Amino acid sequence: MIRFDSDYMEGAHPAVLERLVSANRVQTPGYGEDEFCAEAAGLIREKCAAPEAAVHFLVGGTQTNRTVIASILRPHQGVVSADTGHIAVHETGAVENAGHKVLTVSGTDGKLPADALEALCRAHRADPNFEHMPQPGMVYISNPTEIGTVYTRAELSALHEVCRRYAMPLYIDGARLGCALVSEVCDYTLAEMARLCDVFSIGGTKLGLLFGEAVVIMAPALQKDFRYLIKQNGGMLAKGRLLGLQFGALLSDGLYERIARHEVELALRLRDGLRAKGWDFLVESPTNQQFPILPDELLDALAPDFGFSRWQDMGGGMTAVRFCTGWAADEEQVDALLAAIPARG
Amino acid sequence: MIRFDSDYMEGAHPAVLERLVSANRVQTPGYGEDEFCAEAAGLIREKCAAPEAAVHFLVGGTQTNRTVIASILRPHQGVVSADTGHIAVHETGAVENAGHKVLTVSGTDGKLPADALEALCRAHRADPNFEHMPQPGMVYISNPTEIGTVYTRAELSALHEVCRRYAMPLYIDGARLGCALVSEVCDYTLAEMARLCDVFSIGGTKLGLLFGEAVVIMAPALQKDFRYLIKQNGGMLAKGRLLGLQFGALLSDGLYERIARHEVELALRLRDGLRAKGWDFLVESPTNQQFPILPDELLDALAPDFGFSRWQDMGGGMTAVRFCTGWAADEEQVDALLAAIPARG
Amino acid sequence: MIRFDSDYMEGAHPAVLERLVSANRVQTPGYGEDEFCAEAAGLIREKCAAPEAAVHFLVGGTQTNRTVIASILRPHQGVVSADTGHIAVHETGAVENAGHKVLTVSGTDGKLPADALEALCRAHRADPNFEHMPQPGMVYISNPTEIGTVYTRAELSALHEVCRRYAMPLYIDGARLGCALVSEVCDYTLAEMARLCDVFSIGGTKLGLLFGEAVVIMAPALQKDFRYLIKQNGGMLAKGRLLGLQFGALLSDGLYERIARHEVELALRLRDGLRAKGWDFLVESPTNQQFPILPDELLDALAPDFGFSRWQDMGGGMTAVRFCTGWAADEEQVDALLAAIPARG
Amino acid sequence: MIRFDSDYMEGAHPAVLERLVSANRVQTPGYGEDEFCAEAAGLIREKCAAPEAAVHFLVGGTQTNRTVIASILRPHQGVVSADTGHIAVHETGAVENAGHKVLTVSGTDGKLPADALEALCRAHRADPNFEHMPQPGMVYISNPTEIGTVYTRAELSALHEVCRRYAMPLYIDGARLGCALVSEVCDYTLAEMARLCDVFSIGGTKLGLLFGEAVVIMAPALQKDFRYLIKQNGGMLAKGRLLGLQFGALLSDGLYERIARHEVELALRLRDGLRAKGWDFLVESPTNQQFPILPDELLDALAPDFGFSRWQDMGGGMTAVRFCTGWAADEEQVDALLAAIPARG
Repeated sequence: MIRFDSDYMEGAHPAVLERLVSANRVQTPGYGEDEFCAEAAGLIREKCAAPEAAVHFLVGGTQTNRTVIASILRPHQGVVSADTGHIAVHETGAVENAGHKVLTVSGTDGKLPADALEALCRAHRADPNFEHMPQPGMVYISNPTEIGTVYTRAELSALHEVCRRYAMPLYIDGARLGCALVSEVCDYTLAEMARLCDVFSIGGTKLGLLFGEAVVIMAPALQKDFRYLIKQNGGMLAKGRLLGLQFGALLSDGLYERIARHEVELALRLRDGLRAKGWDFLVESPTNQQFPILPDELLDALAPDFGFSRWQDMGGGMTAVRFCTGWAADEEQVDALLAAIPARG
Repeated sequence: MIRFDSDYMEGAHPAVLERLVSANRVQTPGYGEDEFCAEAAGLIREKCAAPEAAVHFLVGGTQTNRTVIASILRPHQGVVSADTGHIAVHETGAVENAGHKVLTVSGTDGKLPADALEALCRAHRADPNFEHMPQPGMVYISNPTEIGTVYTRAELSALHEVCRRYAMPLYIDGARLGCALVSEVCDYTLAEMARLCDVFSIGGTKLGLLFGEAVVIMAPALQKDFRYLIKQNGGMLAKGRLLGLQFGALLSDGLYERIARHEVELALRLRDGLRAKGWDFLVESPTNQQFPILPDELLDALAPDFGFSRWQDMGGGMTAVRFCTGWAADEEQVDALLAAIPARG
Repeated sequence: MIRFDSDYMEGAHPAVLERLVSANRVQTPGYGEDEFCAEAAGLIREKCAAPEAAVHFLVGGTQTNRTVIASILRPHQGVVSADTGHIAVHETGAVENAGHKVLTVSGTDGKLPADALEALCRAHRADPNFEHMPQPGMVYISNPTEIGTVYTRAELSALHEVCRRYAMPLYIDGARLGCALVSEVCDYTLAEMARLCDVFSIGGTKLGLLFGEAVVIMAPALQKDFRYLIKQNGGMLAKGRLLGLQFGALLSDGLYERIARHEVELALRLRDGLRAKGWDFLVESPTNQQFPILPDELLDALAPDFGFSRWQDMGGGMTAVRFCTGWAADEEQVDALLAAIPARG
Repeated sequence: MIRFDSDYMEGAHPAVLERLVSANRVQTPGYGEDEFCAEAAGLIREKCAAPEAAVHFLVGGTQTNRTVIASILRPHQGVVSADTGHIAVHETGAVENAGHKVLTVSGTDGKLPADALEALCRAHRADPNFEHMPQPGMVYISNPTEIGTVYTRAELSALHEVCRRYAMPLYIDGARLGCALVSEVCDYTLAEMARLCDVFSIGGTKLGLLFGEAVVIMAPALQKDFRYLIKQNGGMLAKGRLLGLQFGALLSDGLYERIARHEVELALRLRDGLRAKGWDFLVESPTNQQFPILPDELLDALAPDFGFSRWQDMGGGMTAVRFCTGWAADEEQVDALLAAIPARG
């Protein structure tokens, strides 16, 4: 069976694993206060051209979102998100458990439109009962989004502008950030993106690490005491070095970009192959998640040999499914999948 | 420099690392629903002679305590703990952040005395204002405790009995459980201990894993929906297989016991050596943490060459410090430390 | 100026005030453990034909909803509500602040449809990622709803049935319950409604009290320790007697029904008058809130002399507004308002 | 039976009740945005000589403490309190339910000593594991304390100084503030006290109101968005006017001081009478709570005729009890109690 269910089906990229193995016996202080973490943080600050940024390493994505959001909001504030946002849908209410409402806005291809954000903020301020409703306190977007789409510079700038106007920090969940940055849609660098938000994460789990999310806090006012919040939210790894070692490997020799490019190229190979066979897609995704709409009968036939996620029932016996390519996927696997899917009748 | 600061200064035991490396390319489903986790859970159930127990794998200790406690308590309930309990002192108020008061009882050598627990419960019920105070809702102990001491079977039975009488689940934090089980003080097996509580954890981080805590839920009524709570509290690892693989290795071929024995033997070698030199200890610890009381001057002299934690100022220029031995420590390191500490004048 | 903004513009019905004044000097124990509360609770149990129901008195509505919901749910559970539900819209995220997501369902005229509820529950169970989403744990409805509509017996029975099937308690927010019970739409008694849910409230603030909400817990399993939760959520009034005294007055001599009937009759007088003049309504409301759609120009002209709430911009220079009649409103006021509104051109 | 159990055994002072009755029919906007509240807030600002202070009205004390503390702290911060502080003991863990640890310090006669506060803060900063512990984020004191004692100006200044140095807001719970201000110990005015803290409350419940606590926020940085927090914590009364009316009456014509003086005078009459008979006290209280230590046998004999609270078992068949005098107590009642207590044998 070949699994395209997600990009976290295997362990780590060999270069990452090698780094972990080679440093296994080295003694370091715990809780992320070791040189490996310091070095990796330095690499990130350099890549972001942000010498004053605070960089922290956490274990997982839900944990990261929860910790960042809890760190920023006061109790009466909510976090604005597209209705398809990961925090709105797939984190078992972690944000609510931390006390905050997720204020959802209808998204466009998974993205939060700046004008919809502005409308929500304006409406809140204009409402005579505004104090009876959670106050929009920060904004969450993911880039790429949960359905693989990528923000353009113009879109980010517009969001950034609204956030400035309403004094709301903008947080970008970069669980698969590398795939956005190498995509054909992306017209900005990491350093440029960093300037268009207040906090963002660089996810490792889906780009070749065993696990790990780096949090980059650009806004000085939001940097205070963040380590307390990591600890309180259960994200402070005793052997924190594991995160420094892995991110250190990922950010050396262009490995991060290479893995991202590899994942995206394979996904586009799949996209182009399916398109050539006449199949439609739920959304135009330029990254490592593809959402073709296929007949249920065909999906049942594929299921014993290929792993994928059923995403959305499209009616008429058709379902949009997700195929996802990770660091360990290869052309043979993609071609085997393509070979198993006939041209549209 | 040789570090005895803690038992999480290095990576993983080679047998554990080897297991991770060898399975690196294998594809599995995410979030702990893979065969490696199933297999490791089976090994734990077997070791506990508890075929009906629910077993889950989480990443870290604070996360585990928070998740277990949040899963059990209603909002008005608190968790009873010795005043030295990890949840009471060193988790940045994670339990309070989850909404619950830690009701502390003065401990004896780090242990929660059953009669003090009973007194607290009786007092709560007898108080005319009982509804104005948090209700004791469950009990937390660590075994070994934060200062290395180990509960006897009689002590556990007595706690278990009080918990039964007041309908409070008993939770044992086993961050270093192996060290308790192999200690000279321990007069019960893991399976016997499992029967004297409702939930317990088996910590991996301090016994040779990169990270990982297994939660064993003995009480059927407490097993419901636990995975939701893991996810909500940020403990559900995408590549959950990493936990199954590591615990699978740890629980095979007696590795867990071997590591525990190794850690304890080295600690006792240190203890006996220091005692022979005339030094006193903060507490009589039969496990891998030792707390000798040494002159500040000597500690300053040791500091450039040896890592340790200053635990408690004892006055008169003396400080109790913690030396901790992990899986990677060896006799040469201990002997080097002993050689550097003169006999008491 | 005559205010129809809401039904809490004045103090208390004279009979209620009289009761407070007459008992002012009587000494009683605090915190709702006095005879006045016991007596009022008895009256409620009698009216509900529910001798085993637990009855508690709280101060306000948001507080009541928050306390009831916090008392029932485990941390990973959410409360299902119509998207217009008070807890979803107008309580500053109090439910989220207590840790729980409000799972909204698109309502019909403010009511939660049983089939939509069932679909949500079925979808949750069927989702392969169900543990990554909050679990529907209880159901909230208001009766009458926030826009004045009233559930029929068939609708309540259908909701009750779905709740039973999915083991979710059903909670009815009765902030204006009396107005529902006396409405032409209502085909059940209070006692019959009580049997179709697990918990409900009887609001006093909007039916002639200074303040006060009675919570009636029908389900024995949900009665445990509720007073702890009242105290924790800041709802335990030191002079709890004030609630007992007021509810005692309200539930004597049919005062509750008389006030409800008075409020509804005046509202229907207004409705019928406006309808006769050709105006349309946002929704067909049989209770004391009416939502006519009027020209903005007219509203501006009315504003100096009459209080009302602008509810929804209907486009084309028209706005749906709310007129609300409280215990102190009278026919002269309604007729003055009617006289000020011309027939539709 | 004559009750000295507490100072909330009766309704409201006649002047307060009269005000409520007289304005009963007046129409006002809801939620505290009426002229009565504005007027009362103005009186308070005047009394505090603090034209820039923000003044809000809430219903009860636990609610007030919870709301103020939730408004100020970030999630990783705790509130420092004497171990006898109301938030530490008698609010069913409301502060923990809002996510924060109460960091207790051993008090002196119920008061928080400035040097102990400083020691706690210094120790936190000096601890190498400080991020693993809740950060002291604000300070809570009550004045008078839970056992009737009153801070001196020197004590308040010292606390204020430590708070400034560690950037922690100081909050004074003034549930019985009037009794402190009129006491013989008090060497400052309300306006002077206001300058020595950042937030304080003026309790009405125990000084002649039906209910009500005024919150005065002196520090501009803490004033933002407080009404959202009142609503979220269930403290925003629909008929908020009730609070404005009551506080308006209380703060007119010196009523507040008169009631306070009345309560304290009666308590001191009791104190002096008991002392003359040879009885000792748990603590030297200059306010309206007195804690004589009396024989259990005598207490049993008194119980059918007099209400009081058993406070602390002193051993040897003696118990410290609390007698509390409210606005409605009178000399005859006190003298009846004194007559029933014999001189010490």
